[in-house]
Amino acid sequence: MLSFECDYNVGAHPKLLQRLIDTNLIRQSGYGADEYTACAKEKIRAACGDPDADVFFLAGGTQTNQIVIDTCLSPVEGVISADTGHINAHEAGAVEFTGHKIIALPHEHGKLRARDVEHCIETILTDENVDHLVRPGMVYISHPTEYGTLYSKAELTALSDVCRRYGIKLFMDGARLGYGLEAAGTDVTLRHVTELCDAFYIGGTKVGALCGEAVVFPRGGAPRYFFTAVKQHGALLAKGRLIGVQFDALFTDGLYFEISRRAVHAADKMRQVLRSEGYRFHIETVTNQIFVILTPEEYEALGRVIKFGFWERLSDGNVVVRFASSWATTEEDVAEFEACIRDFAKLRG
Amino acid sequence: MLSFECDYNVGAHPKLLQRLIDTNLIRQSGYGADEYTACAKEKIRAACGDPDADVFFLAGGTQTNQIVIDTCLSPVEGVISADTGHINAHEAGAVEFTGHKIIALPHEHGKLRARDVEHCIETILTDENVDHLVRPGMVYISHPTEYGTLYSKAELTALSDVCRRYGIKLFMDGARLGYGLEAAGTDVTLRHVTELCDAFYIGGTKVGALCGEAVVFPRGGAPRYFFTAVKQHGALLAKGRLIGVQFDALFTDGLYFEISRRAVHAADKMRQVLRSEGYRFHIETVTNQIFVILTPEEYEALGRVIKFGFWERLSDGNVVVRFASSWATTEEDVAEFEACIRDFAKLRG
Amino acid sequence: MLSFECDYNVGAHPKLLQRLIDTNLIRQSGYGADEYTACAKEKIRAACGDPDADVFFLAGGTQTNQIVIDTCLSPVEGVISADTGHINAHEAGAVEFTGHKIIALPHEHGKLRARDVEHCIETILTDENVDHLVRPGMVYISHPTEYGTLYSKAELTALSDVCRRYGIKLFMDGARLGYGLEAAGTDVTLRHVTELCDAFYIGGTKVGALCGEAVVFPRGGAPRYFFTAVKQHGALLAKGRLIGVQFDALFTDGLYFEISRRAVHAADKMRQVLRSEGYRFHIETVTNQIFVILTPEEYEALGRVIKFGFWERLSDGNVVVRFASSWATTEEDVAEFEACIRDFAKLRG
Amino acid sequence: MLSFECDYNVGAHPKLLQRLIDTNLIRQSGYGADEYTACAKEKIRAACGDPDADVFFLAGGTQTNQIVIDTCLSPVEGVISADTGHINAHEAGAVEFTGHKIIALPHEHGKLRARDVEHCIETILTDENVDHLVRPGMVYISHPTEYGTLYSKAELTALSDVCRRYGIKLFMDGARLGYGLEAAGTDVTLRHVTELCDAFYIGGTKVGALCGEAVVFPRGGAPRYFFTAVKQHGALLAKGRLIGVQFDALFTDGLYFEISRRAVHAADKMRQVLRSEGYRFHIETVTNQIFVILTPEEYEALGRVIKFGFWERLSDGNVVVRFASSWATTEEDVAEFEACIRDFAKLRG
Repeated sequence: MLSFECDYNVGAHPKLLQRLIDTNLIRQSGYGADEYTACAKEKIRAACGDPDADVFFLAGGTQTNQIVIDTCLSPVEGVISADTGHINAHEAGAVEFTGHKIIALPHEHGKLRARDVEHCIETILTDENVDHLVRPGMVYISHPTEYGTLYSKAELTALSDVCRRYGIKLFMDGARLGYGLEAAGTDVTLRHVTELCDAFYIGGTKVGALCGEAVVFPRGGAPRYFFTAVKQHGALLAKGRLIGVQFDALFTDGLYFEISRRAVHAADKMRQVLRSEGYRFHIETVTNQIFVILTPEEYEALGRVIKFGFWERLSDGNVVVRFASSWATTEEDVAEFEACIRDFAKLRG
Repeated sequence: MLSFECDYNVGAHPKLLQRLIDTNLIRQSGYGADEYTACAKEKIRAACGDPDADVFFLAGGTQTNQIVIDTCLSPVEGVISADTGHINAHEAGAVEFTGHKIIALPHEHGKLRARDVEHCIETILTDENVDHLVRPGMVYISHPTEYGTLYSKAELTALSDVCRRYGIKLFMDGARLGYGLEAAGTDVTLRHVTELCDAFYIGGTKVGALCGEAVVFPRGGAPRYFFTAVKQHGALLAKGRLIGVQFDALFTDGLYFEISRRAVHAADKMRQVLRSEGYRFHIETVTNQIFVILTPEEYEALGRVIKFGFWERLSDGNVVVRFASSWATTEEDVAEFEACIRDFAKLRG
Repeated sequence: MLSFECDYNVGAHPKLLQRLIDTNLIRQSGYGADEYTACAKEKIRAACGDPDADVFFLAGGTQTNQIVIDTCLSPVEGVISADTGHINAHEAGAVEFTGHKIIALPHEHGKLRARDVEHCIETILTDENVDHLVRPGMVYISHPTEYGTLYSKAELTALSDVCRRYGIKLFMDGARLGYGLEAAGTDVTLRHVTELCDAFYIGGTKVGALCGEAVVFPRGGAPRYFFTAVKQHGALLAKGRLIGVQFDALFTDGLYFEISRRAVHAADKMRQVLRSEGYRFHIETVTNQIFVILTPEEYEALGRVIKFGFWERLSDGNVVVRFASSWATTEEDVAEFEACIRDFAKLRG
Repeated sequence: MLSFECDYNVGAHPKLLQRLIDTNLIRQSGYGADEYTACAKEKIRAACGDPDADVFFLAGGTQTNQIVIDTCLSPVEGVISADTGHINAHEAGAVEFTGHKIIALPHEHGKLRARDVEHCIETILTDENVDHLVRPGMVYISHPTEYGTLYSKAELTALSDVCRRYGIKLFMDGARLGYGLEAAGTDVTLRHVTELCDAFYIGGTKVGALCGEAVVFPRGGAPRYFFTAVKQHGALLAKGRLIGVQFDALFTDGLYFEISRRAVHAADKMRQVLRSEGYRFHIETVTNQIFVILTPEEYEALGRVIKFGFWERLSDGNVVVRFASSWATTEEDVAEFEACIRDFAKLRG
């Protein structure tokens, strides 16, 4: 069955797999001290335009969020997040597990507003009982957000300005970063992210890799003993090469950006089809995720021909579903999607 | 250069890689709900002779130790380990990070003795201040140990008996389990391990996989909400298939045991060569690790032709080094090793 | 200056101090194994009407909240609280420090509504990604709440019913419990609290003691090894008698209730005075706390003659302040308060 | 019955109690912002000869150890302690609860040797796998030790030198500090402790107070946001005055030292009696604790007339018991002790 359920339902991009095959029997040191990892780091530094950036590889998104947040915060500090932020909503309390409170603020289409963040920080710091409160030490954002939306460069800059004014870190969860950077109309580049954030990661798992996220601390800003902290959190892979090889391939000849672009184009085409058939969007997105409102009948019927993700049930009984394209979405997949939606429309019609 | 530095310096066994290639573009659900994972679990249950065993896949050894210990212990409990145990000596405090004390006992060639464990438990439980003490809740052993040694079936049974008498769990770190089960002269099988332990893992990273350890809780004994705990510890892979596919291949047609056996045979041959050339062993082992005592001069000179691991410096100035074979060690490697050692002996001679 | 700033600004009720003096040089075992502690526990069990209740003494409120929540929850569980709950708003992240998420729900005058709690639990448990979510394991309420409001017996029963239906614990923070139980018009008694909750504490620090809270686990429901957990959290006092003696005095001849009643009567009188002079209340309360809305001018001027607590600034510029009576509030204090408010009204007038 | 079981079996020194009575109804701010606390801090700074010292009050010893260690260490660091150290042996894993490993070294009469500490640090820091190891961040010592022994000024200086050379903190658990400072023959003063340590505490619970320990961070060295960390650990008392008042009294007119001296003199006298009657000492001490070896018969018989503490059973069947004097030990107590021991000797004789 045609499936747009999520962006992590197949293996690796063939070029990554090929690199794993090619390097498989070459002897290398463990724990990330291999030459592929070194090479991948260099390429990422170049792509970020920051020769001093500290780069580390971790296996997955929740792990990365947990470790970056825990190591960047002092023990009495908490992290500000949109209430819809992945760390607040879908990570089984991984941040609290390491002892930190998430200070959740209302979101606007999955995004934090700089003025809300500023108001929150200001309220805490001017509270006469501030010493009894969790101190804000970091702002967590996801880009694209959990709703597939994007920050503009101006919005990111505003958040960064607030953070710097208060000496607080800005951390971007980039599990789907490629799909954000290649979206139509975005004015945010990887270099902007590097300039404006204190930590961020370039998602691999959802953008072509079997596993792996590249954590970047711009301007040499890695927390002290970060490697040991990774080990202490149980996150150090003996065969660090597994992720190093994949990111080396992803950052060779712009593959990461190219496959992200293709996924976004596929989603653009799908959006066009859906719009032309009169579907309503729950949220307007330009990335690889599409949130559509279906009637209960449509939900049932369409679900029999296309696999999609259940998102939420609205108070009026309608259902929000998610279609996700990915680097693995082919032109044939999109054509089939179009045919399917058109057919379905005729039936409805 | 000829390298016997460690058993995690190349990629995956070719059959595992082939399975990854073959399954790469087949759509599967995430988070371990794929069919390869299901299939691998079934094969592991069969190999263990325990149809009710709970099986989970995690990415690495430290992670597995941390999560199994944390989820099996109540918060006030600690884990008994040999002082040389990996969790006590080389995991950056990953167990303490989750709040548990390691109660370290002296080792005998890397092993815990049942009578020492019993004495320790008895001493704690009969202390009139027992309520001020860390309660022992688990015994951690590694098999093979960090010294490459093995428990006999009688020793394992004695440990298991002590644990059951006191209602304490027995957990086996099997990062190199295959190399133990296939060692010459061992009387311990995977079924014995399943019968005698409350939790153990079948190491993949060091036995043919790119990453991955298979955690087994015999007799349906997984801690409640273990899956959620894995997520909470940041250890859940979105593409669980990565490990599922590899273990499926490892447990097809006895591959895991076959490649382990080959590694141990290679080590046996290497031990024979070393012994015949008059080298002294720091510890007598039958697994894939060989610990040899070198003079400082030998250490320097031999280190220029063979890569090995530094283990420790003895008080007499001599050096203990480790040679490790692995599933990837070829007959050519062993022949080259022999030639090299013989040549070196002539030079010494 | 006349002060109604808070209910912890003097030492101990004279009868408690006298008991400390009387028992001072009598030799007793440490760590709560003294006879005063035993006696106090017995009296509390009797007052609760539950001969099987487990009773423990801890030093302060945040400590009690932290330890009770941490020991009653399994590690993957979180605690539901009103967003205004003390644990969520004013305890520096003490609950998250022990690894648990607070699932914050909107409050109604500081209270949680049973239907909101039920909806929250139901939403989590029926989420298809429930295994990626923090599981609700406890409901935390404060009585009186941080806003000085009280649950009715029907409301408490509804919360208790929801908790029992889902196998979740109900925990009441009773830092000011006495002032709630003795408030005019309440239909909730200590026996009801005992029946309906799985854990609660009878606050001492704010109700006559120098320090100390009595934790009650009705029906023998203390978490296993609770004493050891208290030690592990650093909360065990060597001279447990300090709290035992005070609670023994508080629960002799109904002193706890008598002094609570007096404090509430004082507050009733103060409320009457304020109402008759036309002050508006931010929240209607019947306990020892009074929340009054002042204009900025009143805030300044009145603050020069009476010490009160700043609560919050409203969007219209007005200020909410808190007047708190306590067991130490005398009739003279109230008379002086009245005179002061009347005089001030004339000036305003 | 005559009791020398421990040094925390009565209440407070009468002068402390009197101060609590005198100040009881004076209104003061909460959370340690009262004037008694301020005054006590000033007096402690003066006694330490360090006007810049940061001083805080906590309720008990385990709590103090836990919070000081947790706040002074970075999350990847551990604390070096003698294996007999209180934090390692008798605090229910309170340090590990906060995520830190205790690196236990063999003791010499309860003391750490500077050269062992140096060797331990050097071994870790020069290990080629240092990044996989727990980093030593602090050395914990108790003075007097759990065996009642004392460091000489030279020994303390040597430890301090090692710590400073490696940039590691030196923390002294002074639960019984007074009894150490006033022991016959010691050359260590409070000023030396202040000069040589980075953190220490002046024990109150065992030296005249109902509860309370004074934590000193010499030279303004308190960890950032220490107050908030105390709250986060659940250790902040609303009525901070309770401890402030007591330490104010303890440091008025040298009371702390005077009552410590009296306790040590009592112990000296008791040691003399025991020695003259031929008792053997398990460890030679000069502080308030006396460790005597008894035959099983003596243990039984003497235990019927004097209450003492069981310490340990030796391999030859004999029993080590502890007699502890305290500030509350009177001349009559000592005389009675002497009479009792003499009588008992005659019976034995």
